[in-house]
Amino acid sequence: MDVSRFLNADIGRGDMTTDLVVTDTDGVAYITCERDTVVAGLEEASEVFALVGGDASLLVKDGDRVSAGSRVMSVSGPLRGLLTAERTALNILMRMSGIADMTSRAVAAAEGKVIIAATRKTTPGFGDFEKKAVAIGGGDPHRASLDSMVMIKDNHIRACGNVRNAMERASKASFAYKIEVEVDNVADAVTAAEMGADIIMADNVGPEATGEIRDAVRSVSDRILVEASGDITPEGVAAYIGKADIVSMGCLTHSAPSAKFSMDIN
Amino acid sequence: MDVSRFLNADIGRGDMTTDLVVTDTDGVAYITCERDTVVAGLEEASEVFALVGGDASLLVKDGDRVSAGSRVMSVSGPLRGLLTAERTALNILMRMSGIADMTSRAVAAAEGKVIIAATRKTTPGFGDFEKKAVAIGGGDPHRASLDSMVMIKDNHIRACGNVRNAMERASKASFAYKIEVEVDNVADAVTAAEMGADIIMADNVGPEATGEIRDAVRSVSDRILVEASGDITPEGVAAYIGKADIVSMGCLTHSAPSAKFSMDIN
Amino acid sequence: MDVSRFLNADIGRGDMTTDLVVTDTDGVAYITCERDTVVAGLEEASEVFALVGGDASLLVKDGDRVSAGSRVMSVSGPLRGLLTAERTALNILMRMSGIADMTSRAVAAAEGKVIIAATRKTTPGFGDFEKKAVAIGGGDPHRASLDSMVMIKDNHIRACGNVRNAMERASKASFAYKIEVEVDNVADAVTAAEMGADIIMADNVGPEATGEIRDAVRSVSDRILVEASGDITPEGVAAYIGKADIVSMGCLTHSAPSAKFSMDIN
Amino acid sequence: MDVSRFLNADIGRGDMTTDLVVTDTDGVAYITCERDTVVAGLEEASEVFALVGGDASLLVKDGDRVSAGSRVMSVSGPLRGLLTAERTALNILMRMSGIADMTSRAVAAAEGKVIIAATRKTTPGFGDFEKKAVAIGGGDPHRASLDSMVMIKDNHIRACGNVRNAMERASKASFAYKIEVEVDNVADAVTAAEMGADIIMADNVGPEATGEIRDAVRSVSDRILVEASGDITPEGVAAYIGKADIVSMGCLTHSAPSAKFSMDIN
Amino acid sequence: MDVSRFLNADIGRGDMTTDLVVTDTDGVAYITCERDTVVAGLEEASEVFALVGGDASLLVKDGDRVSAGSRVMSVSGPLRGLLTAERTALNILMRMSGIADMTSRAVAAAEGKVIIAATRKTTPGFGDFEKKAVAIGGGDPHRASLDSMVMIKDNHIRACGNVRNAMERASKASFAYKIEVEVDNVADAVTAAEMGADIIMADNVGPEATGEIRDAVRSVSDRILVEASGDITPEGVAAYIGKADIVSMGCLTHSAPSAKFSMDIN
Amino acid sequence: MDVSRFLNADIGRGDMTTDLVVTDTDGVAYITCERDTVVAGLEEASEVFALVGGDASLLVKDGDRVSAGSRVMSVSGPLRGLLTAERTALNILMRMSGIADMTSRAVAAAEGKVIIAATRKTTPGFGDFEKKAVAIGGGDPHRASLDSMVMIKDNHIRACGNVRNAMERASKASFAYKIEVEVDNVADAVTAAEMGADIIMADNVGPEATGEIRDAVRSVSDRILVEASGDITPEGVAAYIGKADIVSMGCLTHSAPSAKFSMDIN
Repeated sequence: MDVSRFLNADIGRGDMTTDLVVTDTDGVAYITCERDTVVAGLEEASEVFALVGGDASLLVKDGDRVSAGSRVMSVSGPLRGLLTAERTALNILMRMSGIADMTSRAVAAAEGKVIIAATRKTTPGFGDFEKKAVAIGGGDPHRASLDSMVMIKDNHIRACGNVRNAMERASKASFAYKIEVEVDNVADAVTAAEMGADIIMADNVGPEATGEIRDAVRSVSDRILVEASGDITPEGVAAYIGKADIVSMGCLTHSAPSAKFSMDIN
Repeated sequence: MDVSRFLNADIGRGDMTTDLVVTDTDGVAYITCERDTVVAGLEEASEVFALVGGDASLLVKDGDRVSAGSRVMSVSGPLRGLLTAERTALNILMRMSGIADMTSRAVAAAEGKVIIAATRKTTPGFGDFEKKAVAIGGGDPHRASLDSMVMIKDNHIRACGNVRNAMERASKASFAYKIEVEVDNVADAVTAAEMGADIIMADNVGPEATGEIRDAVRSVSDRILVEASGDITPEGVAAYIGKADIVSMGCLTHSAPSAKFSMDIN
Repeated sequence: MDVSRFLNADIGRGDMTTDLVVTDTDGVAYITCERDTVVAGLEEASEVFALVGGDASLLVKDGDRVSAGSRVMSVSGPLRGLLTAERTALNILMRMSGIADMTSRAVAAAEGKVIIAATRKTTPGFGDFEKKAVAIGGGDPHRASLDSMVMIKDNHIRACGNVRNAMERASKASFAYKIEVEVDNVADAVTAAEMGADIIMADNVGPEATGEIRDAVRSVSDRILVEASGDITPEGVAAYIGKADIVSMGCLTHSAPSAKFSMDIN
Repeated sequence: MDVSRFLNADIGRGDMTTDLVVTDTDGVAYITCERDTVVAGLEEASEVFALVGGDASLLVKDGDRVSAGSRVMSVSGPLRGLLTAERTALNILMRMSGIADMTSRAVAAAEGKVIIAATRKTTPGFGDFEKKAVAIGGGDPHRASLDSMVMIKDNHIRACGNVRNAMERASKASFAYKIEVEVDNVADAVTAAEMGADIIMADNVGPEATGEIRDAVRSVSDRILVEASGDITPEGVAAYIGKADIVSMGCLTHSAPSAKFSMDIN
Repeated sequence: MDVSRFLNADIGRGDMTTDLVVTDTDGVAYITCERDTVVAGLEEASEVFALVGGDASLLVKDGDRVSAGSRVMSVSGPLRGLLTAERTALNILMRMSGIADMTSRAVAAAEGKVIIAATRKTTPGFGDFEKKAVAIGGGDPHRASLDSMVMIKDNHIRACGNVRNAMERASKASFAYKIEVEVDNVADAVTAAEMGADIIMADNVGPEATGEIRDAVRSVSDRILVEASGDITPEGVAAYIGKADIVSMGCLTHSAPSAKFSMDIN
Repeated sequence: MDVSRFLNADIGRGDMTTDLVVTDTDGVAYITCERDTVVAGLEEASEVFALVGGDASLLVKDGDRVSAGSRVMSVSGPLRGLLTAERTALNILMRMSGIADMTSRAVAAAEGKVIIAATRKTTPGFGDFEKKAVAIGGGDPHRASLDSMVMIKDNHIRACGNVRNAMERASKASFAYKIEVEVDNVADAVTAAEMGADIIMADNVGPEATGEIRDAVRSVSDRILVEASGDITPEGVAAYIGKADIVSMGCLTHSAPSAKFSMDIN
C-alpha cells in the first residue's frame, strides 16, 4: 500500500514554511497518543517518514491498546523532513487507529463466536488502509473489491426477478470464487443454498430471523456460512452470538471516530 | 477532482457479480437520503455514474438541506454500469454530505460573524473532496497543502528558537503568499504581527485570550486576521464571536459522522 | 482492459511512414482470417481501431469458429489511423484467437464433464487478455492473481512442513475467499478437505490417482472440487472424465500457436 | 525495461496465500531448467526477485545453451518474497528462453551469412522483452516501433498508387532514419533503390526471386540491403544464403514454444 | 522536482550508441562552463547523473558567478551512464543558468530596493525549474500556478465589467490566499486597495504612473504592495526604484539566452 | 503530443481567480500576434482550449508568416475555460513560433541546398514540441532521442580510443538504424565512411574543411551525407552551401527568442 501519493499530495510543490524557517539539521520527534485507543497504522506512518529520510522506532505494535499520553513511535532524521511528513503520518494513524479501536470493541463483544467483518462502505482513496485497520482490530476485511467474489445483493435480485434466476446465472462464475447471496427470508436462503451459495447474507432481519436462516441453510450443507448485516453497532453484536457466523458492520469504516495523536520535536 | 481512480479501485478486474447476473439492458436508479442532512457530492457522484455511461439528473443541489426519504438524484443508463458504480457513488455522497452537514451547523452558530475553516486533518487520498464539502457547507477550506501559504506552527517555532527568528526567516518568502503564525500569547502575536504576519493563529487559548490577541494585533494593522483553533466543536463556535475572525475545526473533516444514502433500481 | 498502452508503445513518437506517405483521407479495411480458428479479441481489436478514429463492424463474433479466408471485421475511418493501428490489432487477434482455439479443443474433449481451466502461466503484460481468450474458448480463467484466492502449492507446503500446518495457518484467511491445496496423495487430500479446503489440486498424479483423491474428498463433503494439473494437453483431457472436476492447463496460455490474420485496405 | 508492473499485476492487493502460511524468514530457492534450451531473461528474472528483496546469483548467462536439469539461478532472501515473485520470474524466463532458443536455431542455419531478424508481430505489453530475447539468441531485433524507421508496406503502396509515389513522399523523411520498402518484383525494387531506399524487403517471393532482387538493387548501390520475409521458418533459412542479407521471421516472437523452468525452495 | 522523466524521454528504449561502443567500465567526467554566467541547476544535473549511478561533486554552488573555462562539476561512475545522461544534464544547466544569469543582472540593477519577480510565461513542462532558476538568481518566483493566489487580470476585469465587481466577487476567496489586481490607473488601484487587494499590479504604465499608484494605495494601507509589469528588461529596472515594490519580468523565463556548458570524459 | 499535463500543471487544484470572478457563460476570445513571426503551435494551442471545452478556429496555418497585429486564432466556448487555458496556450505558441521563425530564416539562407537540422539541445519536457516547431519552420528535426540512431560523438570516440574501434563496435548495431560519426579531420571521416557510416558530422571545422571532408567521403559512397555543426547561426549558413549536406544548429531550440502573442476576450 503506497503512502507516497498521500505525502506528495500534501507537499505539492514544496513545504514552503519548513524550507524557509527550519535549518537543515537532524532531529528527533515523538508521536504521542492523546486518548486511549487500539493503535493501527504504525507501519504506514513509518513509511511516510521513510520517504523524507526519517527512521522510525516503534514503541508499541499495531493492535496494541495504549492509554492517553503514551508515546507510540519515535522518529529520527532530517528535521525538515520530519515536519513535512508530520500531518500525513498523523492523519493515517488517527483514522486507522479509530477504526481498529471500534473493531476491537465489536470483536470483544463477539466473544470469539462471531466473525466481525467490514463492508465496502469505505472512504474512496483510503479503503485499503481502512480494511487493514479492521484486520488489526481483529476483524475480517471481507471482499476487497468487486472482483473478489460473487455477491448478489438486493438490486441484483430485483434485476433478475428472483433469487433462483440470479443463482442460475451466478453458477457460471469461475469455480475459483465464492458466491454470497443477500436474502431476507428462509425460503430464499434455502433456494440459494441448494443452488450452491457459499455464504448467505441475512440483511436487516434481526437476530432471531438470522438464526432461523442459519438453521435452515446448515441443513443443506454444514459448509455454508450466514452473515448478518444492517446497521449493526458494536453494542448490537452480542445478540447475534449463536445466530450468525459473521456480523458485517459498515460503521467500522464510515463512522469510527478518529483517534488523537500529536507529534513533538525534541 | 478525478473520481475514476475511486471507481477503478473498486472494480479491479471487473464487477464479477453484475456481469454474470444482470442482463445488458438500460435502467433507472434513484438515490435516496435516509437521514436529514445537508447534501454534498452530487456532482462527484454524477461523474462516477458518467464513467459507466450513466446520465444523472439532480433532484436537489449541493448545499441543500434535505430530509430523510428525499430522493436526491436519478440516474438512467446501462443497468450493469449503474450497479457497478453504486457503492463508489454512495461512499462519496455519504462522506461529503456528513462533512457539509457538520460545517453548516458550525456556520449557523457563527451567525455570519466568524469564518468557519477546515484544517489539513483530512483523510489521505480524499482530502480535496473533504475540503470541497466544507465549502459546500459554507466553510472556508483553508490552505490546500503545504505549498499554499507559509504557516508557522509550534514545532517550527521550537526549531527556530522563538517567534522572532521564525518570522525573520519567513520574511524571505515570496510576496505572493500569506504568512500565518501560531501563538499562544499576546507578546508573540504582536511580534509576529509587527514582522509582517498576515494571520495569527491563537491555538488552544480559549475565547477570552483569543480576543485579547485580536485586539493587540489589530492595533498593528487592521488587515491582520486572527484564527482560533484547538478542539473547537460546532457547539463551541458561538463563544468566539467578537473574539476571532476565523475558527478552524479539525473535527469537520476527521469526525463528521457519515450521512446515509441508498440506491434502488426502478 | 486497456489497449491504449499497447498502441502507444507501438507508435512511440509517431508512425513516421504512414504520416509521410499516406494522405489524410478516409478508407475501409478488412481483416481476414488466414487459417481455421476460433476467433477471440474482436472487441479488443475494435478498441484499438477506435483509438485512431476507426469504426469497426464485426462480421463474426468472439467465440465463433471461422475458416481460412473469412473476413472477420471491417473498419472504416481515417486511412492513416487504420494503418497505424493495424499491427497492434492483429497482434491481439492472433494471440487471443490462438488461445481460444486451443481451449475450445480441450473443452470439446471434456464433453461437458470436466471444467477446462487456465493457470497463471501467462505472458507478463498480456495475461488478462489471455485469460479472457480462455473464457471465450469455453474455459474457466481460474484465479486472476495472487489476491483472488488462497492457493497452497508445493513450495508453500514445504515451507510449512506439511499440509496440516499449512491448512491451520490458511484457516485464518478471510471467509470471503476459497482455499485450494496442491497434493499428490490421498492422505494429504483428506487432511486438507477435513480442515476446510474448497478445492484439491492433484498435481502430476495421472487420472487414476486423481480419481481416487476425488472419491476420498467427496466423502468429506460433496462441495469439494478436485482439479487435475501437470502438463496435460487437449489430447490428455478425456482420460480425466469421471476422475476430476477441473483440468487446468498451462499450455493454453504458454503454448497455443498464434492464429493468422491479415488486414487489407480496400 | 520495467518488470515491476508485471509483478504488481500478479500480486494485486497481496499474495494472500504466502502471507498467511509462510513465516517471515529468509530462504534460498533454485531455478531449474527442465528442457534443453538457450536461456534468456535471467537479468529480468533477477530484477523481479530484487523487487521483493531477493538477491539472485546467476549460474549460467543469458545466451548460454543449457540442458534439462541444469540449475540456472539461485536466489536468497525473504522466503515470502521469493514465493510471491516465483511465477512472474518463471513466466519471463519461459517466454524469453523459448524465443532465444528458436532464434539461435535460425541463426545457426544462417551460417553467419544472413542476418536473422524479428518483426513487430510481438505480444502486446511484452514486445520489448521478446525483441531482447531475439538479440540474446543472436538475431537482430529490427525496428522497435513505428518511429524507428520508415517502412513502406503493401498497404502503404496501395494507398499511394505505386512504389514511385510512395518513395517520392518518403523522401521528405528526416535524414536520420532509414527507408525500407516492401516489394514483390525486380522493377519495383529497382525503382525504390534508385529513389533512395536503404533496404528492400522481398515479401513472400521465395529464395530465387529474392536473389534476383538483390542482384538488381546492388547494381544501384552496394549499400542497399535486401530482407526476405513471409512465413519463413528456421528450417527455411538456409535457402536464403547468398540470396538475401536479412531474413525476418514473425514466428520467432509469435510461435516460439515456451521453455520450461521450475523453482524449488531449499 | 523530478528529472527522471526528462532523462527517460531522451533515452527512450535505450542509448543505442553508448551501449554498443562504450565498454562497461567506470570513469570520470567534468562539466565546464564555456561562457561567463551565474550557475543554476547543479542540483538537478547531479540528480540526472545519480539516476545512471553517477556520483557528482560540485566544484561551485548554485548562484555562484563563474567565468568561461571554469569546471563546475565532476562526476564519477559508470562511463556508459555518464554519457547517456550528458545531454539531459547539460540541457538543464544551460537553461537554468541562463535564467539565473539574467535574473541576477536585473537584481543588481534593483539595488535591493525592488523585488525582481518572474511571471507564468514559462516553458510548458519545465516551468518549475525556471522558477527555481529565478530564485537562484535572486529573484522572486511569484505564483507557481493558478491555485497559488487570486490574480485578477485585464480579461477578468473585462468579464466582470469593472474592478469593483471583480473585487466584490474575489472577496469570497479563502482567507488563506492573497489577492492581486491588475490596473492601469490610480482610481482603479484605490478601489481595489480599499476593497482588500493585497497587491496592485500596474501594467504597462511606466515608472511615473506606477509611482503615483503606489503613493495612492499606500495611503489606504501600508501593507499593500505595488508590482510593475509590461515588457520591462533588466536595463529598465532602475527606473522603477522608488516607484514600485516589485518588478515582474516575463523575459527572465521566455527570453534568457542559454548559458553554455560542455562535458568531457577524462 | 500531450498538452494536458501542461495545462494541469498550471491549473493545480483550480483556477481560483477565474472560478471566483467570472460567471459561467460562453464567450469568444482572439489570439493576436504582436510581432512579425512565422507561426507554429496553433494545433497544440487548439488542443489546450479543447481541454476546457473551447472550440478554436484557425485564422492562419502553422508555418504561415504573419505580421504584428494579425489575429491568428479565435476560440469560442465557456469563458472560464478560455481564461484558465490562456497562459498555457500562449506559452506554447510563443516558444514554438519563435523557433519556427528562426528556423525559417536559416532555411531561407540555405537556398534549398542545405538541410537545416535541429539538435538534442532542447528544453527538457518540451523537446518534442521544439522539434515539431523546427519542422514547421522548414527544418529537419534530426534524431528524436538516444534510440533513434547510432551517433558516435567525441566522448564516445575518446572512450573507444579512436574512430576505427568505435566503428567496429558500432557495426553490430541493428541494420534498421543509421550510423553517424562526429569527426574533425578527413582521415577519420574516410575511415568512418569506409567502415559503413551513413552520415559524417564535421564538428567545428568551418566550411572549407567541411567541404574537404565531403569530397573525401563521397568518393567512398555517394550515399553518405555530411553534417556541419558547431555554433552555426542562421547568418553562418550560407557559407556551407556546396560544402555540407546538412547544417545542424543548437541555437534553433536553445536560443530562439520567443514570439509574442496575446489573448483578448471579446
